[in-house]
Amino acid sequence: MSSTYGEKIKISVFGESHGNGIGVVIDGLPAGVKIDMDKVLVQMSRRAPGKDKTATPRKESDLPKVLSGMLGDTLTGAPLCAVIENTNTKSGDYGNLLNCPRPGHSDYTAYVKYNASNDIRGGGHFSGRLTAPIVFAGAICRQILEEKGIKIAAHIASIGNVNDKSFNPVSIDDKLINKLSNSSFALIDDSVEEKMRAEVESARLAQDSIGGTIECAVSGIEAGIGEPMFEGVEGVIAKAVFGVPAIKGIEFGKGFELSKMRGSQSNDPFEYKDGKVVTKTNNCGGILGGITNGMPVIFRAGVKPTPSISKEQDTVDLQKKENAKLVIKGRHDPCIVPRAVPVIEAVTAVAILNLL
Amino acid sequence: MSSTYGEKIKISVFGESHGNGIGVVIDGLPAGVKIDMDKVLVQMSRRAPGKDKTATPRKESDLPKVLSGMLGDTLTGAPLCAVIENTNTKSGDYGNLLNCPRPGHSDYTAYVKYNASNDIRGGGHFSGRLTAPIVFAGAICRQILEEKGIKIAAHIASIGNVNDKSFNPVSIDDKLINKLSNSSFALIDDSVEEKMRAEVESARLAQDSIGGTIECAVSGIEAGIGEPMFEGVEGVIAKAVFGVPAIKGIEFGKGFELSKMRGSQSNDPFEYKDGKVVTKTNNCGGILGGITNGMPVIFRAGVKPTPSISKEQDTVDLQKKENAKLVIKGRHDPCIVPRAVPVIEAVTAVAILNLL
Amino acid sequence: MSSTYGEKIKISVFGESHGNGIGVVIDGLPAGVKIDMDKVLVQMSRRAPGKDKTATPRKESDLPKVLSGMLGDTLTGAPLCAVIENTNTKSGDYGNLLNCPRPGHSDYTAYVKYNASNDIRGGGHFSGRLTAPIVFAGAICRQILEEKGIKIAAHIASIGNVNDKSFNPVSIDDKLINKLSNSSFALIDDSVEEKMRAEVESARLAQDSIGGTIECAVSGIEAGIGEPMFEGVEGVIAKAVFGVPAIKGIEFGKGFELSKMRGSQSNDPFEYKDGKVVTKTNNCGGILGGITNGMPVIFRAGVKPTPSISKEQDTVDLQKKENAKLVIKGRHDPCIVPRAVPVIEAVTAVAILNLL
Amino acid sequence: MSSTYGEKIKISVFGESHGNGIGVVIDGLPAGVKIDMDKVLVQMSRRAPGKDKTATPRKESDLPKVLSGMLGDTLTGAPLCAVIENTNTKSGDYGNLLNCPRPGHSDYTAYVKYNASNDIRGGGHFSGRLTAPIVFAGAICRQILEEKGIKIAAHIASIGNVNDKSFNPVSIDDKLINKLSNSSFALIDDSVEEKMRAEVESARLAQDSIGGTIECAVSGIEAGIGEPMFEGVEGVIAKAVFGVPAIKGIEFGKGFELSKMRGSQSNDPFEYKDGKVVTKTNNCGGILGGITNGMPVIFRAGVKPTPSISKEQDTVDLQKKENAKLVIKGRHDPCIVPRAVPVIEAVTAVAILNLL
Repeated sequence: MSSTYGEKIKISVFGESHGNGIGVVIDGLPAGVKIDMDKVLVQMSRRAPGKDKTATPRKESDLPKVLSGMLGDTLTGAPLCAVIENTNTKSGDYGNLLNCPRPGHSDYTAYVKYNASNDIRGGGHFSGRLTAPIVFAGAICRQILEEKGIKIAAHIASIGNVNDKSFNPVSIDDKLINKLSNSSFALIDDSVEEKMRAEVESARLAQDSIGGTIECAVSGIEAGIGEPMFEGVEGVIAKAVFGVPAIKGIEFGKGFELSKMRGSQSNDPFEYKDGKVVTKTNNCGGILGGITNGMPVIFRAGVKPTPSISKEQDTVDLQKKENAKLVIKGRHDPCIVPRAVPVIEAVTAVAILNLL
Repeated sequence: MSSTYGEKIKISVFGESHGNGIGVVIDGLPAGVKIDMDKVLVQMSRRAPGKDKTATPRKESDLPKVLSGMLGDTLTGAPLCAVIENTNTKSGDYGNLLNCPRPGHSDYTAYVKYNASNDIRGGGHFSGRLTAPIVFAGAICRQILEEKGIKIAAHIASIGNVNDKSFNPVSIDDKLINKLSNSSFALIDDSVEEKMRAEVESARLAQDSIGGTIECAVSGIEAGIGEPMFEGVEGVIAKAVFGVPAIKGIEFGKGFELSKMRGSQSNDPFEYKDGKVVTKTNNCGGILGGITNGMPVIFRAGVKPTPSISKEQDTVDLQKKENAKLVIKGRHDPCIVPRAVPVIEAVTAVAILNLL
Repeated sequence: MSSTYGEKIKISVFGESHGNGIGVVIDGLPAGVKIDMDKVLVQMSRRAPGKDKTATPRKESDLPKVLSGMLGDTLTGAPLCAVIENTNTKSGDYGNLLNCPRPGHSDYTAYVKYNASNDIRGGGHFSGRLTAPIVFAGAICRQILEEKGIKIAAHIASIGNVNDKSFNPVSIDDKLINKLSNSSFALIDDSVEEKMRAEVESARLAQDSIGGTIECAVSGIEAGIGEPMFEGVEGVIAKAVFGVPAIKGIEFGKGFELSKMRGSQSNDPFEYKDGKVVTKTNNCGGILGGITNGMPVIFRAGVKPTPSISKEQDTVDLQKKENAKLVIKGRHDPCIVPRAVPVIEAVTAVAILNLL
Repeated sequence: MSSTYGEKIKISVFGESHGNGIGVVIDGLPAGVKIDMDKVLVQMSRRAPGKDKTATPRKESDLPKVLSGMLGDTLTGAPLCAVIENTNTKSGDYGNLLNCPRPGHSDYTAYVKYNASNDIRGGGHFSGRLTAPIVFAGAICRQILEEKGIKIAAHIASIGNVNDKSFNPVSIDDKLINKLSNSSFALIDDSVEEKMRAEVESARLAQDSIGGTIECAVSGIEAGIGEPMFEGVEGVIAKAVFGVPAIKGIEFGKGFELSKMRGSQSNDPFEYKDGKVVTKTNNCGGILGGITNGMPVIFRAGVKPTPSISKEQDTVDLQKKENAKLVIKGRHDPCIVPRAVPVIEAVTAVAILNLL
């Protein structure tokens, strides 16, 4: 009851970082939709590590093999299973983690939950590598959504204290969506890239890591999607987004900023525009009462710094039952925010397709 | 598929603000637990309106009638249904809303979703009044949790720009929990009450409203609760919390602040304390990899200002298909944050009981 | 996780035989459908006891009160809750059952499951009386299905060794459907009624009870409904039908008879008829691979004899931990098959609406 | 929303007969259980075709490859994915089926449901071959159940008109369970094997097929398992069993026979035996009110004859929109009942593990 998501479109993610393979089963896909596998690979590539200094130099061969659910390039309506084989798994690096859980990681909680039977190598099922099949599933769902005119894009809203511009919440053009959703360092304002990379490099040189935020927009979604209360759009998206490792916060529209505002400022006034009901502002992030109002759905997710850092840290030795020091060897992303952007888009695509 | 929540403990909320009655069915409760109905009524009373100037003067008779699932004061294990009759429903106030949706409300989205067949009176099923049965359900779940040593308390973390103190995230004593979870204006630092009430009164005098934030803590929860990925503690709690009207953001532990931190700052070091593994800090809010680590679970939720304000607002007339002005008559809470505190506790109780 | 059914249309049944009230919440109903409440009451009345010698003389006042989800006679799209108050509950009759479980009843299994905290009075939540809200829910769903041209009817296929005729499986006319679905002793061949009533009377005079079978048909359902494997039409209907007390078997089309047949006999040949693909026979009960083929869906359910009989029976005394004799006092149906017919129709309506 | 089953233990089956591979993801397995893979392969081998004249001579290489969820021979608690590669897929045989649906098969219903985009080759996702991963999942669940003292066995209760003996419903010894659950032609009374094989051979020589029934027993299951109403043991098992192709009926205990009995015959009297409450008979199949009573759970499933027969059959040509004749080439099982026995055991194991 853990690694599955969704009612209409059900994804079931499996695999461990250093096991035989990882993958996903997607159940409930519509028959007859043609899939452009090159576009899927673009999404996989955006998430893949090793592209530059912001990411781990570990090479992944993330080519997914589709076992079922497609005939040629067309969805058959049967469950689609895609498998990515694990190669280049250097387990030796992780030996001492068995006894000494890494601060900020799931090592300790998994140890308790699974009675020490879990696969600790590379984080096992908790590894960030498991986001690869999620991106695959999202890339399939995204193409189905695009047929309905719904587009999804996210960008690096901030890394440390360096901020990108925000989306114009009442109008997001397709050009921007296309640019962002094909970029591996997705920014609205490209001029901040250098500063952001410097922020990451500074953390890396300090044997440290750095967090950030991601802003995501869904355009072209009509009014009336979502249910009241517990199946509202916010809750459905939040459940999907918190399925992504390292996410510790989510806010819709103006989010936490609303808590300092007055109603006369935060309420989005309605007006007719080209014969259609729109709002003049979009502080609610396109959602009222859990239901879309026809404006872009917009949210921000907070990403904690990668917990794997090279600096010495305090931990415990679970065998000796005493305090211990830990130095994590191996290669790690000093900042996973850029690679998390397509993952956020992916879970959003799965969530939105479930809401339709 | 809307107003239900949970897998193990399933709650199904029903009713409209001005219908015959509202209530909840709770399915999956354990047999044999004794319920102190007075304690349930304390929770209902914390949420009830009309206590002071921060709340609407509308009187509610929120006494729930238990139709099933209890024999005397003991849970039988069968579904528990509690009904609250609606009285004092002055529908006349809401006439013009049928055509002119209130900004910030669900009027428009419900109109689109339900093809104008929804019950608009008093917000219908979207009314904040529907949180009364949620508080009832939470009060039952809370007593079951207390038998297991798990306690839940929340407080008004902020109203507008006035902040309460935060929980000490590594140690929350029962005295504080008890104080907060019985208070109708729950604060850690009572000295800020006056300032907060002034903030609300200022909004009220301006025919306006004001937002805030709520911080919630779960103490006594052992390590190993929750599932990886999509059934992680964050996602399960978030889905419940976004079921509460006016919530637009949620963050766990240090939340969005983590996005500006470095890993060496944000990672919570482990140590042995009294033979038990604890963390020295609790930036992760008691959750690693979606699973509890034995520290208090802590999160903050952002509450938008009540959308019902007396000031004139821009809207549309859906019949005449033209822009319109709206003045909302009737009595409204200038700030719902104090009354939302027990609601947040309630959904958290339901969520946590589902996770065990 | 027990008394709920369905994903799209979720029903949550609550109540005990001798509690304050029983009822149902139906979540997921479409907005805007007009409900003819008189037709709902016809269904309730078909299930109600006390009409003649085949049923218990106990009077029930089964008038449901709709608390929510309707505005006037129209569904609003919000959860519909209907409550039936319990009156005429003569608990005294059931005293000795606390210690001495009735053979064939749920007394013993509920005692074990709920640690003796369950409400034993009148069977508690296991009482046949709980089928009243199920019939209510089915009557609502039925009207929604009728708008789509889908009709449901069942009849008493047999009581003891007396059999009614079967449906013509390839063609069921509306006249028959209407007759059956409005009858309280539903038969295709009315000439067998006398014999069936004699069979029941014979059992009654012997202080005994008698079982039977019910055959149910769904007409007007188009091809392509249902999912492969575990969400096939057979499985979805079976899960609903086994929710009805006393049902111990279900078979679709020719059912168990198929197991003695050869493929050349059991396969239903396809042919074009009026430009539409039909089958010449309907041994499969309108379902191939879990999916409807456009022919009527037909199944039979086996009903065990009412376990409550006046004859002395062997049981145990759970307090004294010794064997005991039991004589059940009070008034009981010698045969529940006629009253179970509308209940089978009701759960079928809920199941089919979930499949669409 | 189709090929998944279960809440606690969730299985998600994927693959098509002639695709790249088939398999299953099992989510929710307990960590730390050691799996004897040889025993898993015994179960797979019982289902595998080609062992003798009752089965298709088509060879399958059904060796499953475990991609995740195990470390050495131990379950890690993470989702277990097993993949079976497809080899020996002779698609040529199935060409004409694209236009001319086979009577008794899912060809036509899948054509309608999936808008002709489904993979028709070898039945695609509807192929009996998809029961291989189901048997794999059941074999894992079975070993977990055995740790709790719960054992499952089924046998060929009948083929055509030849019957095996039935289980002694009040006492099933481990020796019998072990014998049956390791046999590929599982019979209680081995002396009927010859007659049964003759029945199958007779059908085969007539270019025809033959149906049968399977009886399944679960021993060692304690009282109190299951929920009232829609999550009763009958409904949960039935939903799983109807997920197996060709099953058209299920009955628990005496099943349909009960409908001809009187209450005094069908009620199972309680008695104390060795200090434990048991029933003297077991007509209810170990289930009262949807909940186990501590006696063996027993049910029978009806299997229709294999629809693939060599005889010429009437069908339609969906392209030419006219009636047509069909002769199915290729090799087919004249009787799938023996191979269906381990499949029924497998889904029962998954269902029971979900109920605990």
